[in-house]
Amino acid sequence: MLLKVLELVGVVAFAASGALVGVSKRLDIFGVCLLGVFTAIGGGVIRDVLLGIHPPTALNTWPTFTTALVTSVIVFFLHPAVSKLRREILVLDAIGMGLFASSGAVIALAAGASNQAACLIGATTAIGGGVLRDMLVNEMPLLLHRDLYAVPALIGSTVTVACLEFGLTPNLGLVVGTVSASTVRLLALWRHWNLPGPRVSES
Amino acid sequence: MLLKVLELVGVVAFAASGALVGVSKRLDIFGVCLLGVFTAIGGGVIRDVLLGIHPPTALNTWPTFTTALVTSVIVFFLHPAVSKLRREILVLDAIGMGLFASSGAVIALAAGASNQAACLIGATTAIGGGVLRDMLVNEMPLLLHRDLYAVPALIGSTVTVACLEFGLTPNLGLVVGTVSASTVRLLALWRHWNLPGPRVSES
Amino acid sequence: MLLKVLELVGVVAFAASGALVGVSKRLDIFGVCLLGVFTAIGGGVIRDVLLGIHPPTALNTWPTFTTALVTSVIVFFLHPAVSKLRREILVLDAIGMGLFASSGAVIALAAGASNQAACLIGATTAIGGGVLRDMLVNEMPLLLHRDLYAVPALIGSTVTVACLEFGLTPNLGLVVGTVSASTVRLLALWRHWNLPGPRVSES
Repeated sequence: MLLKVLELVGVVAFAASGALVGVSKRLDIFGVCLLGVFTAIGGGVIRDVLLGIHPPTALNTWPTFTTALVTSVIVFFLHPAVSKLRREILVLDAIGMGLFASSGAVIALAAGASNQAACLIGATTAIGGGVLRDMLVNEMPLLLHRDLYAVPALIGSTVTVACLEFGLTPNLGLVVGTVSASTVRLLALWRHWNLPGPRVSES
Repeated sequence: MLLKVLELVGVVAFAASGALVGVSKRLDIFGVCLLGVFTAIGGGVIRDVLLGIHPPTALNTWPTFTTALVTSVIVFFLHPAVSKLRREILVLDAIGMGLFASSGAVIALAAGASNQAACLIGATTAIGGGVLRDMLVNEMPLLLHRDLYAVPALIGSTVTVACLEFGLTPNLGLVVGTVSASTVRLLALWRHWNLPGPRVSES
Repeated sequence: MLLKVLELVGVVAFAASGALVGVSKRLDIFGVCLLGVFTAIGGGVIRDVLLGIHPPTALNTWPTFTTALVTSVIVFFLHPAVSKLRREILVLDAIGMGLFASSGAVIALAAGASNQAACLIGATTAIGGGVLRDMLVNEMPLLLHRDLYAVPALIGSTVTVACLEFGLTPNLGLVVGTVSASTVRLLALWRHWNLPGPRVSES
């Protein structure tokens, strides 16, 4: 139950981030909603397509989709107020990201994926929506060049898989994985961690 | 039978729109064909991937693929003439869009999708090719910021699902859904309907 | 066994091409690895999604993924030296492309695809990674406008399907298909073959 609530918190944060990008690109209400919904459900849809869960849960049941749509509409009408919540949205986004990475890994294992596949598909669940959002508005995905986002996601899914491998229950693994991923992400944001760039070519 | 013909009409219109974009980007013949074929079959392939229909029908059978390829080749060689048919292509495209939205919804329901999933997957079938086309040539998808395209597609799939829910036969639902979607789309083109953009930020 | 080795050769070449693009975009180490891995496994993942092989082999088993990751890390640290191997990488890439096109076609047939679908899915396996790479860094896919790449891939998959249709064993078909595709690709590179562009509009 708490997990369900937390997952919708993540959906709200993801949809808000997508819708805000849409507003900043001056899209109309439908473009904003489309971008918000794609960002919120994209990762889960990619996960289900990779695992052969048809049709994808986020399309087939109403809570995720409805939450994403309502959030996008609210952002469209109240975006000046929402923009001021950038900090809060980043925190919610970090929690959602952690939860998606962990739950993606658990769902992948339950669908018969190998440990490696569960780590990779969990991380993909967490980063898929953001990558889709950036590709749709024709920008290079943030996580490729600026954001330490994929590393925390991979840590979250890997910790979850390790917990289950060591005999913890899925629920406990989910909590430990989510906390790991979200903590690393928030630390990275707070301390402005960046990974090293390539050395400048000697030529 | 009529439906089969209408579907190929839609494929022709979609392939022509993709191939014309390719010509305007000065691609070679293979780039033009690739873009035309992707635009024409993209929506159906995404639909089948979401529903678990393997391999996707548009790849596995010949009529759609062949029609898309031949159309693209014709556009490549006769594009000055085809460009003058912009109006007619838009009308055919509206019919194809409506049919793809409705038939996508019917196919989704037949594959066991929920009503909500059928509405969303039907609309995705109709808009998928165009989104793919715009992403491939590195432009923001038209429907995000200029075209009233996704709304008519969603109306078409929703009307179709409602018709079947009320006991109509799939064929009848298909006709009503297609006519609804195509009519809204043509009205939007004719009247230059647009959805409201975001209010300018007060700051 | 030789095929396994050749396939990893292809993975190395694909990962190197993706990682080099990442370095040229000045991505950090994680961006470079992400781009290298996506380029190397993208085509195979798309193939498995189209065929309903869940989870995709490249995610579920370790050799491909590990090879791609190690290659990307090496490119990140040694990119000035690797850049000088551009010629060698193009040759390896041509071999990998041919092998992916042929093995993609064989795997598609084994999964019950039609001959046409096997040709198309084989070619998609070979070109998918490169298209994904270019789309992620926000550039129009090279093969759409400059590179004769999709044609050799399609030749490779089609020759393979034809060989199997004429009763050759899959292994033999694989060899003939790979050699055909790689030869055409290398000839195209060597002779600077290009397909004709669209005639300039008369207007």
